[in-house]
Amino acid sequence: MKLYGYFRSSTSYRLRIALNLKGLAFENIPVNLVTAENKDEGFTQRNPFGSLPMLEADGRDRAQSMALLEWLDEAYPVPPLLPQDLEARYTMRELAYAIATEIHAINNLPVLKYLKDPLGHTQDEIDTWYRHWLARTLVPVEARLAQLDAGDFLHGDAPGLFEVVLVPQLYNARRFAYDLSASPHLTRIEAACLALPAFERAHPDNQQDSPERKPQ
Amino acid sequence: MKLYGYFRSSTSYRLRIALNLKGLAFENIPVNLVTAENKDEGFTQRNPFGSLPMLEADGRDRAQSMALLEWLDEAYPVPPLLPQDLEARYTMRELAYAIATEIHAINNLPVLKYLKDPLGHTQDEIDTWYRHWLARTLVPVEARLAQLDAGDFLHGDAPGLFEVVLVPQLYNARRFAYDLSASPHLTRIEAACLALPAFERAHPDNQQDSPERKPQ
Repeated sequence: MKLYGYFRSSTSYRLRIALNLKGLAFENIPVNLVTAENKDEGFTQRNPFGSLPMLEADGRDRAQSMALLEWLDEAYPVPPLLPQDLEARYTMRELAYAIATEIHAINNLPVLKYLKDPLGHTQDEIDTWYRHWLARTLVPVEARLAQLDAGDFLHGDAPGLFEVVLVPQLYNARRFAYDLSASPHLTRIEAACLALPAFERAHPDNQQDSPERKPQ
Repeated sequence: MKLYGYFRSSTSYRLRIALNLKGLAFENIPVNLVTAENKDEGFTQRNPFGSLPMLEADGRDRAQSMALLEWLDEAYPVPPLLPQDLEARYTMRELAYAIATEIHAINNLPVLKYLKDPLGHTQDEIDTWYRHWLARTLVPVEARLAQLDAGDFLHGDAPGLFEVVLVPQLYNARRFAYDLSASPHLTRIEAACLALPAFERAHPDNQQDSPERKPQ
């Protein structure tokens, strides 16, 4: 498998975590989002959305991150990202999709760029926008976790689809100085995940295109 | 089942279509998004996200529309919203989730309200924003449909998850005067869907809270 991604792209980060959790080996191929390498014709011919990540696997290029995660869980079911029980599956998807749609989509790089140009907003206004959408959904997610009396993970003793989406979003939340002090369930789950090798290896700082990468 | 929704909310419209396709009877309970009835304490106690739609079914309130559609397809599998074949399932989700995340989430009412206040944008600027995100994803979706040589539906001879998400988005595209003349696959699929009773009954104009509703 080949994963075309960018170290700091949170959807690329989701895929790196999921592939690691599944124990699937992959070659990581950096594509620079900031210089828009993802808009090069060679790339958009393979992925008309021009989005990252793109996974080349089983003879096909796939590029929509939530559809990719669902596919990965069906094609490589062990260990599962979704529980067996229908009620638990709904809960797992509810919280994962709330973050993917109500936070990430609105705070994604193309949207932030549009706010800057053509809309002319300052970095301060963009940072306020970013934190507004974080709070609007992370506060009810925290409330749901409290209601469910969640422990180190949303379901059982291992991370699932929710954690795959949550951890990259909290990485971004910290970059934008979002205050997580009133979110004990979120930060406990994050800490439990970050202690796992699958998450550690997937971290942006540990990718070959990261300026933060430590010598191996 | 009880569906709490708003006639013009495209996520409520998704659920009405899906419930009709599954042949599931439900009571439609209007919640006025414009006067923010969805932020009333009685409602947010049941749904901490304060979002529509909310489906009361099997003793539980569920409120994240994509998670709800996935749950519905698992709890009531016939007729299916997703094909059996893994490759076809990926394609169905790719296009459905592209619209749900890359268009709908960015053009959702709370985002448009934020652009107006506090950001102070004019209705013209907001309409341009709306059409920008439509084009950015509908153009590659149309290209994918051409590549797949899609007929009246993305997969087989019946609508699935893609059509459930597409039709409400095109209803909104028309409200915002988006030009669909270069999208023959999208408009053919839309026409095939709108000819079906399940879509007809789900249409915003046919809900009891719509001012357009014709006398029965």
